Amino acid sequence: MIDKNLLETFENPYPNRDYEILIIQPEFTSLCPKTGHPDFGTIRIKYVPDRKCIELKSLKLYLQTYRNEGVFYERLVNEVLDDLCGILEPRMMEIIGEFTPRGGISTSIKVEYKK
Amino acid sequence: MIDKNLLETFENPYPNRDYEILIIQPEFTSLCPKTGHPDFGTIRIKYVPDRKCIELKSLKLYLQTYRNEGVFYERLVNEVLDDLCGILEPRMMEIIGEFTPRGGISTSIKVEYKK
Amino acid sequence: MIDKNLLETFENPYPNRDYEILIIQPEFTSLCPKTGHPDFGTIRIKYVPDRKCIELKSLKLYLQTYRNEGVFYERLVNEVLDDLCGILEPRMMEIIGEFTPRGGISTSIKVEYKK
Amino acid sequence: MIDKNLLETFENPYPNRDYEILIIQPEFTSLCPKTGHPDFGTIRIKYVPDRKCIELKSLKLYLQTYRNEGVFYERLVNEVLDDLCGILEPRMMEIIGEFTPRGGISTSIKVEYKK
Amino acid sequence: MIDKNLLETFENPYPNRDYEILIIQPEFTSLCPKTGHPDFGTIRIKYVPDRKCIELKSLKLYLQTYRNEGVFYERLVNEVLDDLCGILEPRMMEIIGEFTPRGGISTSIKVEYKK
Amino acid sequence: MIDKNLLETFENPYPNRDYEILIIQPEFTSLCPKTGHPDFGTIRIKYVPDRKCIELKSLKLYLQTYRNEGVFYERLVNEVLDDLCGILEPRMMEIIGEFTPRGGISTSIKVEYKK
Amino acid sequence: MIDKNLLETFENPYPNRDYEILIIQPEFTSLCPKTGHPDFGTIRIKYVPDRKCIELKSLKLYLQTYRNEGVFYERLVNEVLDDLCGILEPRMMEIIGEFTPRGGISTSIKVEYKK
Amino acid sequence: MIDKNLLETFENPYPNRDYEILIIQPEFTSLCPKTGHPDFGTIRIKYVPDRKCIELKSLKLYLQTYRNEGVFYERLVNEVLDDLCGILEPRMMEIIGEFTPRGGISTSIKVEYKK
Amino acid sequence: MIDKNLLETFENPYPNRDYEILIIQPEFTSLCPKTGHPDFGTIRIKYVPDRKCIELKSLKLYLQTYRNEGVFYERLVNEVLDDLCGILEPRMMEIIGEFTPRGGISTSIKVEYKK
Amino acid sequence: MIDKNLLETFENPYPNRDYEILIIQPEFTSLCPKTGHPDFGTIRIKYVPDRKCIELKSLKLYLQTYRNEGVFYERLVNEVLDDLCGILEPRMMEIIGEFTPRGGISTSIKVEYKK
Repeated sequence: MIDKNLLETFENPYPNRDYEILIIQPEFTSLCPKTGHPDFGTIRIKYVPDRKCIELKSLKLYLQTYRNEGVFYERLVNEVLDDLCGILEPRMMEIIGEFTPRGGISTSIKVEYKK
Repeated sequence: MIDKNLLETFENPYPNRDYEILIIQPEFTSLCPKTGHPDFGTIRIKYVPDRKCIELKSLKLYLQTYRNEGVFYERLVNEVLDDLCGILEPRMMEIIGEFTPRGGISTSIKVEYKK
Repeated sequence: MIDKNLLETFENPYPNRDYEILIIQPEFTSLCPKTGHPDFGTIRIKYVPDRKCIELKSLKLYLQTYRNEGVFYERLVNEVLDDLCGILEPRMMEIIGEFTPRGGISTSIKVEYKK
Repeated sequence: MIDKNLLETFENPYPNRDYEILIIQPEFTSLCPKTGHPDFGTIRIKYVPDRKCIELKSLKLYLQTYRNEGVFYERLVNEVLDDLCGILEPRMMEIIGEFTPRGGISTSIKVEYKK
Repeated sequence: MIDKNLLETFENPYPNRDYEILIIQPEFTSLCPKTGHPDFGTIRIKYVPDRKCIELKSLKLYLQTYRNEGVFYERLVNEVLDDLCGILEPRMMEIIGEFTPRGGISTSIKVEYKK
Repeated sequence: MIDKNLLETFENPYPNRDYEILIIQPEFTSLCPKTGHPDFGTIRIKYVPDRKCIELKSLKLYLQTYRNEGVFYERLVNEVLDDLCGILEPRMMEIIGEFTPRGGISTSIKVEYKK
Repeated sequence: MIDKNLLETFENPYPNRDYEILIIQPEFTSLCPKTGHPDFGTIRIKYVPDRKCIELKSLKLYLQTYRNEGVFYERLVNEVLDDLCGILEPRMMEIIGEFTPRGGISTSIKVEYKK
Repeated sequence: MIDKNLLETFENPYPNRDYEILIIQPEFTSLCPKTGHPDFGTIRIKYVPDRKCIELKSLKLYLQTYRNEGVFYERLVNEVLDDLCGILEPRMMEIIGEFTPRGGISTSIKVEYKK
Repeated sequence: MIDKNLLETFENPYPNRDYEILIIQPEFTSLCPKTGHPDFGTIRIKYVPDRKCIELKSLKLYLQTYRNEGVFYERLVNEVLDDLCGILEPRMMEIIGEFTPRGGISTSIKVEYKK
Repeated sequence: MIDKNLLETFENPYPNRDYEILIIQPEFTSLCPKTGHPDFGTIRIKYVPDRKCIELKSLKLYLQTYRNEGVFYERLVNEVLDDLCGILEPRMMEIIGEFTPRGGISTSIKVEYKK
């Protein structure tokens, strides 16, 4: 079950400076809610931290909770943005989900948040 | 026969947020209206949904209706834009058609729509 | 309809020497006999001509006759080998069909003929 | 649960000729039996069919049964070879499993069967 | 002899919309006016059509008339721009000529026209 | 021990002109402060010098002092920026640290300084 | 007009040792004897010299004499082999001509000579 | 200090079949015994197990013990082969060490063991 | 000895139009003023000509005069800019020097001139 | 002046085992004996040491002595083989010289020595 409570943060060590953190998880998988077949993709998260940074291992565990969930791409990428922005309150965040081809067609979704 | 009635939509699950959907179909084929020989290309569709998103399988079926139609590249890419914008009324849409070389020369067409 | 009568040959201009001809058609398409959906692939034909060489334009037209035929990959590649060897009687021929992913899985078939 | 009963075959349409079938599944995932974390990899299956060919959709479903199983790479690749050779009795089969890096180190396993 | 009279146009089927056409000819060749040796390059033409589009085959024939002409790169790219803009009166046009190395040094020329 | 005193500078030979220096060290390594295991990455430093330029060998020695230090990525990249800006007082500096995957996830940090 | 008299040789400086010389001309062009349109390709020549080596500039001039000749690929590659072997009498020679796609199909020809 | 006692093994689950295990560690580092500066490289280990397989985490820890040791490339690669063959007694093992350029020159060492 | 007198120009054939000329010399070499060892790099020169264009062969000879000179990267790239702008008086010029790694670290310098 | 006396060796630390050393120098330059212009290339040296290994820095200095020498490719590669085999007496050596294009044509030379 998707579980945002797994997400942990640590204090931003340089809160007085805007800087960018880019995290790439090329090993994302969930299930197609229509067919039940696995979907595969890469999740790219770019953000400018405010007071908190995301702890990487907790992010990995959180993304793993999608493994056996049926979820549409559009909902999934927006949901991850909501969950991460809810806990991090970053100055900016952009998430891109790039999914492997289905029926020859590949899809990607790009979502942004600005304070 | 090209059939835009195949296109189906679903409700945008996040209408309050601007976000971008990129769909790539690298397996497009139609016929050259002059020679009758097959043309091959990649269709890239990028849009910001308003109230509706395109259903992927219906998009695939719609693009397949070009398979045995004779159509010029310029008309084809503009037509797909018209058909998709007519049904989706997106906030923005950009379509790029990249076609494989003929007589050594390759062509691509980029069309944009803004609300 | 698949039509091997389209295939034309010309006399090998250097029959006294073994040499290799490699022909690559990256724009092959046929239909899946199960689903009716289009399949896409690349056909690579390598052969050592004996008395005849294949005329390229006729080969292209022959391969185009698969466009609206439902055919399994295994049958298709073997059939093209049989048709070409029947008309060319080459000293050697190898055909590889590489097909784009379906359900995430890609397939290729390699068939050889030796005199 | 890993389930080889999902595997289905069809009759080899060209049993009198040795030819090679290569199947690539780049979307394989299982679990690490030590940590419970997901592993990701590509499975390449090359074989020369005798009387039977593997049905691709059934192969996909079979490989999906590893999704939530804890299994070491060495066992996994050998097991898939045993399951496929048991049902296909091919003239030759080679399976390569290439797994993404863990702790910076990537691994691949190559197993062969010859009649 | 360079012959712009070979250029043919057809009516822009979508004159009410700005859209971009990109044409790539990677098989361009002319002669060096100093040494008489062949030069090789790629010509990229990007334009927004107004009332006319360039007919591709006529463009190919026109570019072939440079084959045995001695011409400097700077003149050549500007000349093609002048010839195409003269006949098309486009809303915008950009031409890039990229030439293969001579004496280890490669050159490219980028020219733009705006209405 | 991290030692910024190793950093040496030389006088900018062209102080009246803004120009950009890009330095890439693809052989950076430090230790993970949690696990003690080595981390590996690439450090890219881009700056516009004011009165001083960094001496390359001294930069290399300085970056080597991280070799056996436990340090988080976020702190590390900000610290290198602080140390270099402290000694160079450049007109602009941007540092990107790109680190190899851990648990399948890769991270990069981009920090900027403007006078 | 194709002119093998342009070919010049120099004495092999190391005739007592078998060694391999590979020459790549990626800027080959001739005419299609059917359509009169230009063909483009890469010529790769690999040989083990006996008493003579080919002088590179003379080889370039010789290959340029094909520029305005109508010639089939099969004949062309065999002819270059004959011309070069006639003058060099090498211990071994292999020539590969790789030609750019026509009608979507690309072709290459490989010819060998052994003393 | 280089410590081969860190190496651990597990029982080969398929001892009756010859199969190949390839392990790639792209994050190897040691010190140059002449200059004391860090060296960086990739270690590729390919082996056919007999009764034992190498445990991956223990291999990682063992290779990390080279981190602060001064060692020549030739000795290093041979030593790793000796240490691994001493504990695994494999049917075959090949180790390649590829090291990044020093003074513009890059080096790699390939060592083999056969039972 | 570095010799800017080797530089020759020709009259810009299209002075009424702003256009861009890009020249890439990937075969640049000079000496390190500290160690005397050779340095290698690529010089990219982009400019908008005013009344004069640089003659390519003379540019090549000019850059060759650095071959046996000891010169720092920062000085070298600025100097080439000064020499070329002195003779060409271009509307704009940008020079990038990209140098191969030394001690694992690679450097590039980007300098701009605007009229 | 080419000076093989610069070459230094060290004792092979593992003389009882055949193993392969590959050295790549991508920064080789000499002069064309006809035109005096610089030539550039990559030298690849692969050998199985017997009692001696080549010291890398001395190899670099030796190859640098070609910098201002006019020498044909064929002679150069054979000469380096003779010089290295003369001092190393290896069990096997292969040298490949790959040179950048001149007049559009690139050349490489492969020479082997076996004890």
